[in-house]
Amino acid sequence: MNGITLLEYVGVFAFAISGASIAMREDFDLLGIYILGMVTAMGGGIIRDIVTQQGIPIFFTSYGAILVIFIATTLAIFLRGKWDDHMLFVTVDAIGLAAFVVSSGIKAIDNHYNLVLFIFVTSITGVGGGLLRDIFARRKPMIFQSDIYCIAGIIGALVLKGAYPFLGKSLSVYLSLIVIVTIRMFCYLKNINLPKVKHFSSKTESQVNF
Amino acid sequence: MNGITLLEYVGVFAFAISGASIAMREDFDLLGIYILGMVTAMGGGIIRDIVTQQGIPIFFTSYGAILVIFIATTLAIFLRGKWDDHMLFVTVDAIGLAAFVVSSGIKAIDNHYNLVLFIFVTSITGVGGGLLRDIFARRKPMIFQSDIYCIAGIIGALVLKGAYPFLGKSLSVYLSLIVIVTIRMFCYLKNINLPKVKHFSSKTESQVNF
Amino acid sequence: MNGITLLEYVGVFAFAISGASIAMREDFDLLGIYILGMVTAMGGGIIRDIVTQQGIPIFFTSYGAILVIFIATTLAIFLRGKWDDHMLFVTVDAIGLAAFVVSSGIKAIDNHYNLVLFIFVTSITGVGGGLLRDIFARRKPMIFQSDIYCIAGIIGALVLKGAYPFLGKSLSVYLSLIVIVTIRMFCYLKNINLPKVKHFSSKTESQVNF
Repeated sequence: MNGITLLEYVGVFAFAISGASIAMREDFDLLGIYILGMVTAMGGGIIRDIVTQQGIPIFFTSYGAILVIFIATTLAIFLRGKWDDHMLFVTVDAIGLAAFVVSSGIKAIDNHYNLVLFIFVTSITGVGGGLLRDIFARRKPMIFQSDIYCIAGIIGALVLKGAYPFLGKSLSVYLSLIVIVTIRMFCYLKNINLPKVKHFSSKTESQVNF
Repeated sequence: MNGITLLEYVGVFAFAISGASIAMREDFDLLGIYILGMVTAMGGGIIRDIVTQQGIPIFFTSYGAILVIFIATTLAIFLRGKWDDHMLFVTVDAIGLAAFVVSSGIKAIDNHYNLVLFIFVTSITGVGGGLLRDIFARRKPMIFQSDIYCIAGIIGALVLKGAYPFLGKSLSVYLSLIVIVTIRMFCYLKNINLPKVKHFSSKTESQVNF
Repeated sequence: MNGITLLEYVGVFAFAISGASIAMREDFDLLGIYILGMVTAMGGGIIRDIVTQQGIPIFFTSYGAILVIFIATTLAIFLRGKWDDHMLFVTVDAIGLAAFVVSSGIKAIDNHYNLVLFIFVTSITGVGGGLLRDIFARRKPMIFQSDIYCIAGIIGALVLKGAYPFLGKSLSVYLSLIVIVTIRMFCYLKNINLPKVKHFSSKTESQVNF
């Protein structure tokens, strides 16, 4: 097991906990909690593999990841969400985001994807599980509305792609991981968010025409 | 037409009715009612075929299934949801769930899928249509929150996989069908559900950090 | 660049504006606004390419489309939704729907898809982006509930398929485009909608059994 794989397990662990925690908040039953933990941890990679038509998504043969998801979800059930806002959890989640972005970024570079597809696969791997989690739990997708999260992943992915030809694989991987975790944690601690744009109208949904 | 195919049509019929009925409750227009009937009946199999990269999903060439969906949705429109809670409907729906799980389970065994993928394809075939139905209708996905439904399918799938090498195809198929319908109906009649886990916090959505 | 490609850009433009506008209404941050613009403009074509297993969706190499999306979303941010109900916008959107339906219909005819798949790919290309937009923004999918929109696309697609063997490609394309835009605009201006079916029951969600 190399370093990125180890960090990916950290990501799987953090994402499974976030899925399980949302599931408990939303009153899912026991099976639903485990399913949402699994969807959150594996969803991004599965969407990536489906969109890029890579055959059966690799997560279905990742027994290690599935074991980690089972342990994380079980832990979340015992904690019952008590650590959701704990700095430790936010840090672990940021490491997971970084690991997912970087590992899919390396694969995308190896596959010679163009820039658009490169940004898509790195982003969807990092945030796709959380997006599915919010859709299944019928919540407003968090990634669109709060925190410097997805954008930290995109910046880190671009750093990886830009640095790779000059620094080589190892150094650009470390650099990208550090960039993502630093941006994410700095903005989290300083409560920095992306700007929003106020819609001029206050019309209700039923009045919209398209 | 063999026995499983016949039961699959029973499932298509029941799922189309449930989709059409939810569509009427949610104030869909006439086209929306037919679309939701189709999505509910065909969605699980289509997701399965997409995730396992089987080429164009087989449902698009299942004229028989499409005819059944059309008839079921039209019937649902005339009934306007009157039979939704009728024992007959719940029984027909349970038979449909069982047929979808077993028919996809046989295919998965023939394809030598590993256990994880086996559970995924049988479950998603059985409950994926209902999940899409609830997402399109913006409802909380029922399968995560109420009734012994998805878990009945998973148990039946495991029975199929476990019994197949010993009992052969026919007997293990019958056994699995009986297990699923029995568990589903028994728990429905006795009002047995999976346990839930209470989240310790009552924080509102906007306070969550991930 | 031929005529259909040009009209497709019109569609990309209109769909990106509608996505960005909904994103602003729903309080998305700046990145979320651009993402929803992109999802709305490209989502239908991407779903089509995934379901029909065409390899990596072509939109990921359509730099022209991505540029148009960027411009349209930026424009929408400056307008802040002021033109949402403007006749010009509704007309541009109708042209876009027509272009998406017709261009995917031509491809479907070239691929000899059967009627079911033909209707699916033309419809999902035309309305799939708006469906994803509404799911991501947690709104009731508009296409199921209001306006003659999806049905205009389906009628136009059938006109294309029916006229193609007799009129040839060019004439049947023009005819189909005119049919879709005319039906859509006529029904919009006359406020004509598909009928709805009232569900006999007023039960709340939690009482539903499936």
